[in-house]
Amino acid sequence: MMFWHQEAELALIPVQFLFSSDAAEELKEAIAKKNHELVYLYDLNLVDVIWKESRPKPPNKPIRVHALKYAGLDVASKLSSLRSDLVDAGSSAIVISMLDEIAWLLNLRGSDVPHSPVMYAYLIVEMDRAKLFVDDSKVTPDVMDHLKNAGVELRPYNSILSEIKSLAAQGAQLWLDPSSVNAAIMNTYEIAIEKYLTSNNNKKSKTKMHTDTTGQSGGPAGVFRTSPIAFSKAVKNSAELEGMLNSHLRDAAALAQFWVWLEEEIHNGAKLTEVDVADKLLEFRSKQSGFLDTSFDTISGSGANGAIIHYKPEPGKCSVVDSKKLFLLDSGAQYVDGTTDITRTVHFGEPTAREKECFTRVLQGHIALDQAIFPQSTPGFVLDAFARSSLWKIGLDYRHGTGHGVGAALNVHEGPQSISFRYGNMTPLVEGMIVSNEPGYYEDHAFGIRIENLLYVKEVGTPNRFGGVSYLGFEKLTFVPIQTKLVDLSLLSAAEIDWLNNYHSQVWEKVSPLLDGFARQWLWNNTRPVAKD
Amino acid sequence: MMFWHQEAELALIPVQFLFSSDAAEELKEAIAKKNHELVYLYDLNLVDVIWKESRPKPPNKPIRVHALKYAGLDVASKLSSLRSDLVDAGSSAIVISMLDEIAWLLNLRGSDVPHSPVMYAYLIVEMDRAKLFVDDSKVTPDVMDHLKNAGVELRPYNSILSEIKSLAAQGAQLWLDPSSVNAAIMNTYEIAIEKYLTSNNNKKSKTKMHTDTTGQSGGPAGVFRTSPIAFSKAVKNSAELEGMLNSHLRDAAALAQFWVWLEEEIHNGAKLTEVDVADKLLEFRSKQSGFLDTSFDTISGSGANGAIIHYKPEPGKCSVVDSKKLFLLDSGAQYVDGTTDITRTVHFGEPTAREKECFTRVLQGHIALDQAIFPQSTPGFVLDAFARSSLWKIGLDYRHGTGHGVGAALNVHEGPQSISFRYGNMTPLVEGMIVSNEPGYYEDHAFGIRIENLLYVKEVGTPNRFGGVSYLGFEKLTFVPIQTKLVDLSLLSAAEIDWLNNYHSQVWEKVSPLLDGFARQWLWNNTRPVAKD
Repeated sequence: MMFWHQEAELALIPVQFLFSSDAAEELKEAIAKKNHELVYLYDLNLVDVIWKESRPKPPNKPIRVHALKYAGLDVASKLSSLRSDLVDAGSSAIVISMLDEIAWLLNLRGSDVPHSPVMYAYLIVEMDRAKLFVDDSKVTPDVMDHLKNAGVELRPYNSILSEIKSLAAQGAQLWLDPSSVNAAIMNTYEIAIEKYLTSNNNKKSKTKMHTDTTGQSGGPAGVFRTSPIAFSKAVKNSAELEGMLNSHLRDAAALAQFWVWLEEEIHNGAKLTEVDVADKLLEFRSKQSGFLDTSFDTISGSGANGAIIHYKPEPGKCSVVDSKKLFLLDSGAQYVDGTTDITRTVHFGEPTAREKECFTRVLQGHIALDQAIFPQSTPGFVLDAFARSSLWKIGLDYRHGTGHGVGAALNVHEGPQSISFRYGNMTPLVEGMIVSNEPGYYEDHAFGIRIENLLYVKEVGTPNRFGGVSYLGFEKLTFVPIQTKLVDLSLLSAAEIDWLNNYHSQVWEKVSPLLDGFARQWLWNNTRPVAKD
Repeated sequence: MMFWHQEAELALIPVQFLFSSDAAEELKEAIAKKNHELVYLYDLNLVDVIWKESRPKPPNKPIRVHALKYAGLDVASKLSSLRSDLVDAGSSAIVISMLDEIAWLLNLRGSDVPHSPVMYAYLIVEMDRAKLFVDDSKVTPDVMDHLKNAGVELRPYNSILSEIKSLAAQGAQLWLDPSSVNAAIMNTYEIAIEKYLTSNNNKKSKTKMHTDTTGQSGGPAGVFRTSPIAFSKAVKNSAELEGMLNSHLRDAAALAQFWVWLEEEIHNGAKLTEVDVADKLLEFRSKQSGFLDTSFDTISGSGANGAIIHYKPEPGKCSVVDSKKLFLLDSGAQYVDGTTDITRTVHFGEPTAREKECFTRVLQGHIALDQAIFPQSTPGFVLDAFARSSLWKIGLDYRHGTGHGVGAALNVHEGPQSISFRYGNMTPLVEGMIVSNEPGYYEDHAFGIRIENLLYVKEVGTPNRFGGVSYLGFEKLTFVPIQTKLVDLSLLSAAEIDWLNNYHSQVWEKVSPLLDGFARQWLWNNTRPVAKD
């Protein structure tokens, strides 16, 4: 599934809380150019006024502990490593507002945001204590014990600003990530620390705080740079990778059951809408152990709808799945041990030569990225062209990135790494990071093609190590057949055909033990090797 | 030949003239951090003091006109296009100090700098006139006529600063490229324009001039950004490309004569040094029509010397070419119609499996870049990984860029485009640009491998044009056999073998008409198709 932004929490909180500090600054600068001024409404959110009594209550489902066997690292170890980062940065505490960072750091999971197993909270980690700002009705005795063991205290969700003020009043050097911390927290801290510095007559250190062009520096009070947790969270440990792999195999089993069902229905002439299909897929997935939720709204697009990149079929308005057209299905699930995200494109009848050529070139890009080996410190964008090269040869391309990070039993989109034609992200790919591999091609008003697996970065035992560095490559997490009917074998090299056959052999080996009956037969049929005439 | 910098002119001129404005600023900032101050010696160059009478006279070989049939565009047209750029930038005149920009713009060539057909000069182009600052002893009657026709006046070389002062005194908005204009010109202008603004009581516009972080802006007086001529010069017209191709074919003929001679000598047990070999190559080249000079110092490296990237063999100190080791030869020539730059790596006996594997992977990178097709607006660095991918697969790499721009009968290195792992250069590759394609691999104390052709960018008639843009690819300028003895065919795909056979078939077709006798026979032997067992 490609990049988009989660904005579910927007309407629940006062307006300064709705924008990250960076976003507010950007807005301020943009309107200043037209001689307008950004005025914060401190006590009022206009959307709330419109809501009146009809406004839904904030979610308050219980928080649960994310078991150590899935997390791989206990909270104390994570906090200790974070505190080292604070010391290195010359900071005395960090304020974390990214919900997935809090969930990861505390080995907790929540249910406040659809598709993302996170809970509304703030977290402040100081050198000798940590405070979780959360609605305590969500905190079960289990969670309470877990937090106590880790030395984490509870605070009311709404007391975050007064805590910031109180820390500033003691001259705390807070680490705030301006890309994620909201404008309310940033402003509160800036005003309070200014006051502290003035009242201490500490004129020397009283410098305007700023972020420099690289985002890497702060003033004398405050460290304003990217949160160190984003990177730590992105680099999965072996327990996280094991959970991801296990959940992907169960997900693959559900998908095999789904595909055999769908092919049979279509074959029998059933009129199924794109939503019917998505619902049935959810039904198969929900039977798998550890299933919790979908990891995003399923993109189920028949024919021309497949060409709408972020298409979301709506009941009553969406199309019937057409047996004579390509069908694109991008979906994923949240399991207790992992998060999945997969796209397959299939045809239920006879694909055209055009559809086959485009599908084959997308597949070649997918294979090229999957097989890439590269020196450590390589940023993801360097690999992006591998995924486009085969399409470029005939003048085709796609308008989205090729790969995004994925959380381990967390958000289906996470940073800081990416594989994209937007060349600004210099984050290197590091062993243990997860990325999607999802080249595509979209022909307006006709069809969409995307082939997506999740991969993780792994050191490759290359026979040489030029420059004394490690060389990295990818291992697959996703094991679901790619429809060979859509492949024009004459376009593939011998090495590409080997890749396809080898992949299908792994799919059979890993997923068939989880299946029986028709689904197992379907998996067998769909993992047979192919060969050029 | 890879990137390095020409510094031949350094000792000839006073010290402020020795540093570009950017370089002087960088130096100033660096030493300021250590509490030191950069003091310009206005009337003194310490190196000159040491020279005393032994200092050589400045070169004064005659300038020649670069014929319109090679230049493709007359001076009036080039000046007119440049003046449009000045108008667009809000500038009233440009000061040009890059010698190749002056040579290109005025369709002149000189002989003041070894390997580069340029003359020492400055050029100021105003809206209604242009002034060339040059030692008039170099100006022949032909050149004088040529300049008069183009409306270019002559000025003494040493009067550049007084001219800058005089323009500033009239409030001229000069365009100065701080990366190339020297500190003397920049400082003279800054002081003089400040004086002008103050004396005009024009306090409002009296702002400190600066270059912003993107290098794209200036103060109210002066435009401080990259010269527009660099880009215009990089995009070759059809006459320039024709001259480049023709000179490359003659160069290829000289190389065929050279290689057959060298193989025969080595076969007969001759003890030839790396310098002997380079001298003999020069002899063959100098017999070709239109030959002027080598385009850089020949890199002739046997065995371990081939691993020294910018190796320059010295008479009396260099090695004998060893028939049992790899031999790397990177060389080029200046012809009246074009500039060449080619590297071939050969073995005179039986290469080891290791040498063959490394050579083959370098060749695969060379082929991948040669065959790349990409959408317009793609910067060169996006293609760099194509050239490294095959080496990366076994943990190998090389520490230089993959491609640099080349002038048409001008400098063998030019910008602004490049193909490099240094990801900062966002200059897109544009139809008509020339780049080298020179991946390599260097094993310290053992051998060096590099395979270099020159290519030019050309629009490809792809069957689709996704996004409504053009798709670009490369055409070859260099037609010299690649030693197939060094290729491990088992590593090549069918498409790569086709590329090699197709290239050699073109080499034979284009170069054999220029050869007879042994050289023609050598070309025939070395362009035969290969096939996997």
